[in-house]
Amino acid sequence: MTAPVLALVGATGAVGTVMIDIMNTRSDFPWGEVRLIASPRSAGKKINVRGQDLTVVALSPEAFDGVDIAMFDVPDEVSAQWAPIAAERGAIAIDNSGAFRMDADVPLVVPEVNADQIDNRPRGIIANPNCTTLSMMASLGALHREFELKELVVASYQAASGAGQSGIDRLYAEIAALAGKEAGVAAGDVAQVLAAAGLSADDSPFPAPLVLNVVPWAGSLKDAGWSSEELKVRNEARKILGIPDLKVSATCVRVPVVTTHSLSVHATFAREVTVEAAHKIFEEQPTIVLIDDPAAGKFPTPADVVGGDPTYVGRVRQALDFPNTLDFFVCGDNLRKGAALNTYEVAEELAKRL
Amino acid sequence: MTAPVLALVGATGAVGTVMIDIMNTRSDFPWGEVRLIASPRSAGKKINVRGQDLTVVALSPEAFDGVDIAMFDVPDEVSAQWAPIAAERGAIAIDNSGAFRMDADVPLVVPEVNADQIDNRPRGIIANPNCTTLSMMASLGALHREFELKELVVASYQAASGAGQSGIDRLYAEIAALAGKEAGVAAGDVAQVLAAAGLSADDSPFPAPLVLNVVPWAGSLKDAGWSSEELKVRNEARKILGIPDLKVSATCVRVPVVTTHSLSVHATFAREVTVEAAHKIFEEQPTIVLIDDPAAGKFPTPADVVGGDPTYVGRVRQALDFPNTLDFFVCGDNLRKGAALNTYEVAEELAKRL
Repeated sequence: MTAPVLALVGATGAVGTVMIDIMNTRSDFPWGEVRLIASPRSAGKKINVRGQDLTVVALSPEAFDGVDIAMFDVPDEVSAQWAPIAAERGAIAIDNSGAFRMDADVPLVVPEVNADQIDNRPRGIIANPNCTTLSMMASLGALHREFELKELVVASYQAASGAGQSGIDRLYAEIAALAGKEAGVAAGDVAQVLAAAGLSADDSPFPAPLVLNVVPWAGSLKDAGWSSEELKVRNEARKILGIPDLKVSATCVRVPVVTTHSLSVHATFAREVTVEAAHKIFEEQPTIVLIDDPAAGKFPTPADVVGGDPTYVGRVRQALDFPNTLDFFVCGDNLRKGAALNTYEVAEELAKRL
Repeated sequence: MTAPVLALVGATGAVGTVMIDIMNTRSDFPWGEVRLIASPRSAGKKINVRGQDLTVVALSPEAFDGVDIAMFDVPDEVSAQWAPIAAERGAIAIDNSGAFRMDADVPLVVPEVNADQIDNRPRGIIANPNCTTLSMMASLGALHREFELKELVVASYQAASGAGQSGIDRLYAEIAALAGKEAGVAAGDVAQVLAAAGLSADDSPFPAPLVLNVVPWAGSLKDAGWSSEELKVRNEARKILGIPDLKVSATCVRVPVVTTHSLSVHATFAREVTVEAAHKIFEEQPTIVLIDDPAAGKFPTPADVVGGDPTYVGRVRQALDFPNTLDFFVCGDNLRKGAALNTYEVAEELAKRL
């Protein structure tokens, strides 16, 4: 057959930009044509992909003609409208928004965990998980295969870029506003310092200052005080792992980190689990890097792992008081494995099957 | 009786400085005399306490003569040597170091939780808990009285000042090193930016860059990968609450916040617990401020609570999948309630009984 045609919808956004970086650095490249699609505002822009200047075309039904696989890195409402149109035109849509993740007719895929779900796509749409969920899926999927996951308590340390380019810009602006005032500013004066520098709280994508602070909120308010981000972690983990009754409590907290989400994970299994067994499983999983030697000061931190493809795992401990339970810490680049990379890996899996 | 004499050992340190601020702003002041004690290096220095310039005296056995209560805000090894000397000289020592916390003959006291333990002090020493443990004790103690705590899974967001003045200085220096480079620095370049600014990793009290980063480590390495800070949370919570078999898993993480520790808490009780009942308990506890209205963007963050005496609680949710379980978020100023304030409150309790 001829080499398949890959489309990228949202080519000029924060995740789209990372996607182009991934395409430019991938060793194998199975695509006969890459088509870059964006809003009419960005149409005509030229972006270099693997040595060729490609012209961005405007989103339209016709833009999907001849496309085999269309990756969507756009807001929920754009995906909700356009992924079905792409599917109608014959493309398989891989959507990175929240529009289809919990749709029973749309598989939610992390290739190293549930690649088998890729072929079960009655709507012609495959969904990519939320970046916070994704950051722990490689590690939990690998442990679940061996020990059968039953319960999960997680607390997140989420990066500003999870809120898109405006989140990154805001964090940089807040840091700049502190410049020269570091030695004098007590943490409690942060809001005043930001206001004095002309940074209005109303203009922030975050509900509180993020610099020199942490903010226990991400997403929108759902039932009974839970945030949308916390429910995504629960519901998406259940769907990806195929454990409909998995017990989950998640607390999602934004921290002043540009890129890379971290999670503190407390995971209880049906069977006995040791640190040695977990280390072996993590070492054997190609998409995980184990950094776990605290005696030598070695554990994953966002600054060490940003820009990398793998999930980094460390601080693996057997819970002292909970049977069959591990506590550990994971870091994953939320724009790569947490978004663009996983979507692209799903596209690669599909390319093998076309 | 004559008004009691209060000594402060470590008057010139980070916590000692906060202690003097607390003494200067307390409405009732039961002390007949305040004696400021520090290392010989600081002796002779004058510090104003409630309008009087007091001269710091050098630490010596004689410095404790006539002292009723001696508060120690000094490193473990200094407390280990000198608190027993103060007790021998007739003072009751209240020690904020880790030297005596797990000593069976030394009570570990949080006044609103276990004030009754104050009188049970065979060595003449009372210990003040670790700041991370303390940040959640007011809230857990109040819930435990009503619902009987059984299990605890916590993840911390710990401030730089938990590592003392050198931690504060380092975080400010790291922020200053970023100045002017914000727009260009990707999170992954932080270590290089710091090195280029002359900030050696070897000079940091933290094992990794803290600015634009989080570091899943605090304290020293203990058995099986656990950090000393994580074991303190477990062992001190058990002792303070009087639950020797309390199940605890803690993961301690340092974040780029100057002052105020935060904790994500997942707490399981023997009896059914609702958000409404928990709200009522928190509202009735004078040392807790409940900020829990996410629809209005209201929840505690370190920037809001630093410099305050209470523990701030919010994000209270009934766990969706775990019976009798609450998830919530607490913030407490680690230099005040987490250290100086609690020590001073113990001294006030003692003053009532002298």
